[in-house]
Amino acid sequence: MARWEPDARERLVRAALDLFTEQGYDNTTVVQIAERAGVTKSTFFRHFSGKREVLVAGQDALCQLLTDGIASAPSTATPLEAVAAALDFAASAFTPERRDFGPQVEAVIAANTELQERDALKRTSLASAIAEALLKRGVPDPTSSLAAELGVLALKRTHARWSDPTNQETFSELARQSLDDLRAASAALT
Amino acid sequence: MARWEPDARERLVRAALDLFTEQGYDNTTVVQIAERAGVTKSTFFRHFSGKREVLVAGQDALCQLLTDGIASAPSTATPLEAVAAALDFAASAFTPERRDFGPQVEAVIAANTELQERDALKRTSLASAIAEALLKRGVPDPTSSLAAELGVLALKRTHARWSDPTNQETFSELARQSLDDLRAASAALT
Repeated sequence: MARWEPDARERLVRAALDLFTEQGYDNTTVVQIAERAGVTKSTFFRHFSGKREVLVAGQDALCQLLTDGIASAPSTATPLEAVAAALDFAASAFTPERRDFGPQVEAVIAANTELQERDALKRTSLASAIAEALLKRGVPDPTSSLAAELGVLALKRTHARWSDPTNQETFSELARQSLDDLRAASAALT
Repeated sequence: MARWEPDARERLVRAALDLFTEQGYDNTTVVQIAERAGVTKSTFFRHFSGKREVLVAGQDALCQLLTDGIASAPSTATPLEAVAAALDFAASAFTPERRDFGPQVEAVIAANTELQERDALKRTSLASAIAEALLKRGVPDPTSSLAAELGVLALKRTHARWSDPTNQETFSELARQSLDDLRAASAALT
């Protein structure tokens, strides 16, 4: 009956975030999230495999965007130009809605070690995916690994700037600036 | 009564690794680990806060060695020279015993998502600690963050080479090589 719940997914994310914030992540059950969102438990499980996944929803999509971006870069692109293409593609995942949720998501994660671990693995997985996509283009290791770490660092810094309530710039603009900053830092290192 | 169990800690690590390997991490209890090691449950808890901590034991010590190494570098040292000093200090944590346990620890972690998450957070924490120690030396952000990621990447690569059964080189020698490789890769990127 998914067609009768067009915004169920978004309502579930909102409900979960509110409950995690109000009563803590550990004290919140899937049943409570579904109730708050006004959907059934089975609707919850059509969208998420568990309460933790509500917070990392979109990881697979983000990973796909990053690797698609790298694959799309012209064959003449340098590793960092390929990473820039990855961030350009990734920008489409950072919707206004995601920006609204951002600070609350960060606060919930910061309050719970289990979630910090999940988040750390997410970053590690993104770095591995980028490194692998670069290897496929013929970028040798460890240049591929280093460029991937630089990409993830740029993503993290871009996200922090973009989520700032005073920010007026687009994710893409900020991503370019972050990459430029990191490219300069990398040059200063060597 | 810790003085009657001089090698209890090592026996507990060995017992835990064997049980995790034989029957899986999720199926292993603290009571089983203590029994296998021939100690009481309360002895277990004098050494570790839980079964998961057996696998990440030494993280705080490693973190301390890395930051001590950075603090010890001469004031004229470049960020990467400070990171090299961190890895030099860290080498003392990589004992022959740890090398023996290494492949088994890796296999147990690779088989369990929860442990992979814990391991990912460990790497993130090490990077943050290195970045903070560099900031304290006046290395500006994002150079500090980038040098820290490079250090963690070097640590990971060094550990993999050092744990290889055919390896004959010391941790310090391999760390220097890894850092040189990454410095070259970083120069190639920019």
